[in-house]
Amino acid sequence: MKEKIPYKIYLDETEIPKYWYNVRADMKTKPAPLLNPGTHQPLTAEDLAPIFCEELIKQELDNDTAYVEIPQEIRDFYKMYRPSPLVRAYCLEEKLGTPAKIYYKFEGNNTSGSHKLNSAIAQAYYAKNQGLKGVTTETGAGQWGTALSMACAYLGLDLKVFMVKVSYEQKPFRREVMRTYGASVTPSPSETTEIGRAILKEHPGTTGSLGCAISEAVEVATKNEGYRYVLGSVLNQVLLHQSIIGLETKTALDKYGVKPDIIIGCAGGGSNLGGLIAPFMGEKLRGENDYRIIAVEPASCPSFTRGTFAYDFCDTGRICPLAKMYTIGSNYIPAPNHAGGLRFHGMSTVLSQLYHDGYMEAVAVPQTKVFEAAEMFARVEGILPAPESSHAIRVAIDEALKCKETGEEKNIVFGLTGTGYFDMVAYEKFNDGVMDDYIPTDEELAESIKTLPQV
Amino acid sequence: MKEKIPYKIYLDETEIPKYWYNVRADMKTKPAPLLNPGTHQPLTAEDLAPIFCEELIKQELDNDTAYVEIPQEIRDFYKMYRPSPLVRAYCLEEKLGTPAKIYYKFEGNNTSGSHKLNSAIAQAYYAKNQGLKGVTTETGAGQWGTALSMACAYLGLDLKVFMVKVSYEQKPFRREVMRTYGASVTPSPSETTEIGRAILKEHPGTTGSLGCAISEAVEVATKNEGYRYVLGSVLNQVLLHQSIIGLETKTALDKYGVKPDIIIGCAGGGSNLGGLIAPFMGEKLRGENDYRIIAVEPASCPSFTRGTFAYDFCDTGRICPLAKMYTIGSNYIPAPNHAGGLRFHGMSTVLSQLYHDGYMEAVAVPQTKVFEAAEMFARVEGILPAPESSHAIRVAIDEALKCKETGEEKNIVFGLTGTGYFDMVAYEKFNDGVMDDYIPTDEELAESIKTLPQV
Repeated sequence: MKEKIPYKIYLDETEIPKYWYNVRADMKTKPAPLLNPGTHQPLTAEDLAPIFCEELIKQELDNDTAYVEIPQEIRDFYKMYRPSPLVRAYCLEEKLGTPAKIYYKFEGNNTSGSHKLNSAIAQAYYAKNQGLKGVTTETGAGQWGTALSMACAYLGLDLKVFMVKVSYEQKPFRREVMRTYGASVTPSPSETTEIGRAILKEHPGTTGSLGCAISEAVEVATKNEGYRYVLGSVLNQVLLHQSIIGLETKTALDKYGVKPDIIIGCAGGGSNLGGLIAPFMGEKLRGENDYRIIAVEPASCPSFTRGTFAYDFCDTGRICPLAKMYTIGSNYIPAPNHAGGLRFHGMSTVLSQLYHDGYMEAVAVPQTKVFEAAEMFARVEGILPAPESSHAIRVAIDEALKCKETGEEKNIVFGLTGTGYFDMVAYEKFNDGVMDDYIPTDEELAESIKTLPQV
Repeated sequence: MKEKIPYKIYLDETEIPKYWYNVRADMKTKPAPLLNPGTHQPLTAEDLAPIFCEELIKQELDNDTAYVEIPQEIRDFYKMYRPSPLVRAYCLEEKLGTPAKIYYKFEGNNTSGSHKLNSAIAQAYYAKNQGLKGVTTETGAGQWGTALSMACAYLGLDLKVFMVKVSYEQKPFRREVMRTYGASVTPSPSETTEIGRAILKEHPGTTGSLGCAISEAVEVATKNEGYRYVLGSVLNQVLLHQSIIGLETKTALDKYGVKPDIIIGCAGGGSNLGGLIAPFMGEKLRGENDYRIIAVEPASCPSFTRGTFAYDFCDTGRICPLAKMYTIGSNYIPAPNHAGGLRFHGMSTVLSQLYHDGYMEAVAVPQTKVFEAAEMFARVEGILPAPESSHAIRVAIDEALKCKETGEEKNIVFGLTGTGYFDMVAYEKFNDGVMDDYIPTDEELAESIKTLPQV
């Protein structure tokens, strides 16, 4: 237990978890159910069947099964890029002069560049297993679309991606990665769907939105025989698949007898944070261990720290189910200068309930401080972090600096969800000193929250 | 020895080699010395001192020491991203239906995205150790510049990069990665040097060339107190540092009792190929083992397969030392449609001598065939390969398909030098079906080779 901890703790491939962990099983107060946006009644498996795959619906609605076996085919795919390393940030510690021990779970060492692949392969697998021809999805910045295109290429499944038009044009490289993996990528809104044509008629020249892309992807999934729709965050099933991040992290730490004091993750829809903290939160819920768990969100899109815990639409287009979550309103759009990702107005219902019940904290950080942390991290640790991940880096550094003041040797663990190779436009702004911060006023948020549905 | 081979063979960090291996020590015919371009006399350590660091000059000129100890500080840096995985390409084998066993050494899992970091940290370390303030270099596509900026950031060394202007403008993301790591990046030709001003006066509006960028970098290194010039390929010292690729590969294969039948690497200036094959070539030179070793080059820039073994300039600007190598002439510029990297007109003197003496083979492949292989590989193995690396993939696939015909279970090992995240413009051409091949005519090459210096 006392042997020197290496820079990177790699597990053996036989140590890849064989089960995902469903934190809902240990929650005393379960997350509130999704509601039908028309009737406000809880959605049943039958309601969801035209949109989602059968097995994924089961996982979405199952609040009781603690461990779900990972099918062998998915474990084989995981072997291509997992176990991911848990890195001891010796160089960062030295740079900060802190007595804290910092660890990060690095999920960026695969071509999709992020943790999104963990759920993409699972969702693609269940679609294939159900005998489907293909799946549809939307993507903004493109991490999710890239991951899903890799998973679908591997399984020989067709993939139709609706990419927000402004991203399609401004991020041609992301688009080309998806095409290289055989996906069809359509800028949204498009002429290929009814809703796309309607939107284009009403708003000629619009550059699109995630809400609109979701609507097109859902329309194509429901109107085409053999297709379903898949989503990369927010959903319970996604948190289940992403639990592999936390399970591997715990196994690696246990090998060296390290118990984290603080666990930190960035939070947009919650896919990474929910996965990273899952087994630790389980112990906390069962009263076996205590951990400080911190969600980090951008100050420009502060769902946890300034939002309301209420039922809201998951999409700006208001066609998706209602979810009870911390939200700043489905109409809220982060300021145009917001470059750091994590733009979702709401949050996973699981994480929202846990936050509401006091099991975790949340911090909002301004983006220039995030990029300062990203640059320092890149220079000493040698990994160029994604802007999203850098939110967690910021708070890990802040906590490590507090330890420097107090002399405490805390164990700090954070999730490094991905790499920033496709985010150099944001880095350029920072390098040129022209990045600024936007923090919404109370009036803006009060206005936005007025759009909450009456449930 | 018979245990199942995992998808990825990871060495323990204690297994990172402590010595680089210098293949020149085992060569009966040593590589020909560099010559002074003016006097045509062999260059001495004194001649090189104003340009290169002292320790690196020793390494450059030392044809006798077989093992060079890797300083502890460099080994500490290596721990940040090494050992790199040796991957068993199970999915590619299955896709091809071949009885061959395919392995690849993946050097792309670090932010620079390639093997270049192995030599960058070594060169930066010796510069720092000599008490220098900084180093200068040139970069084309940007892999070398990125790697060097990471190494210099880590050591607190200043870095001035001259980036070929057309790349500076067309590859802004690479440029921003270097800037994020604190390097100053100047488009070349520039107004900041004498030679840059002279070239701009003579050719206003030129988009630059590697030869011109080299000239500017050398000028700045020699005219500024406390600076030296560093280079990422071709040189003997670079092959020495890159031997870590081959040493790790051999250790990993030995663990499972695997003896490669064929070893394949892409070859531009030779930094990757020379490193990958080093210990295997050593055994071959000492008569201990035999291996087929194949260099793969682009059909549009075929130094080995259609070049001449002669003294030539290393740069198009003709200011650098003369090296005896396979060359198609220092004036040769690959066709504009050539997207796949490996554009250098010459080749490492070490590899040139070994090829001349019959220790290795060479193959030239057209770029559309290279991108076909890249796409297949990406889809089944999940890694988006750099165009350069994909030359080796192409030939590994071809050899595996031969095994399918003959039923032979050969062990094929190739070097996957890096990732293609910054090469999506080339992938886009391929995806759009507008990529074509250019193979120089015999007349063109005959014309180009006329520029050889008379030695």
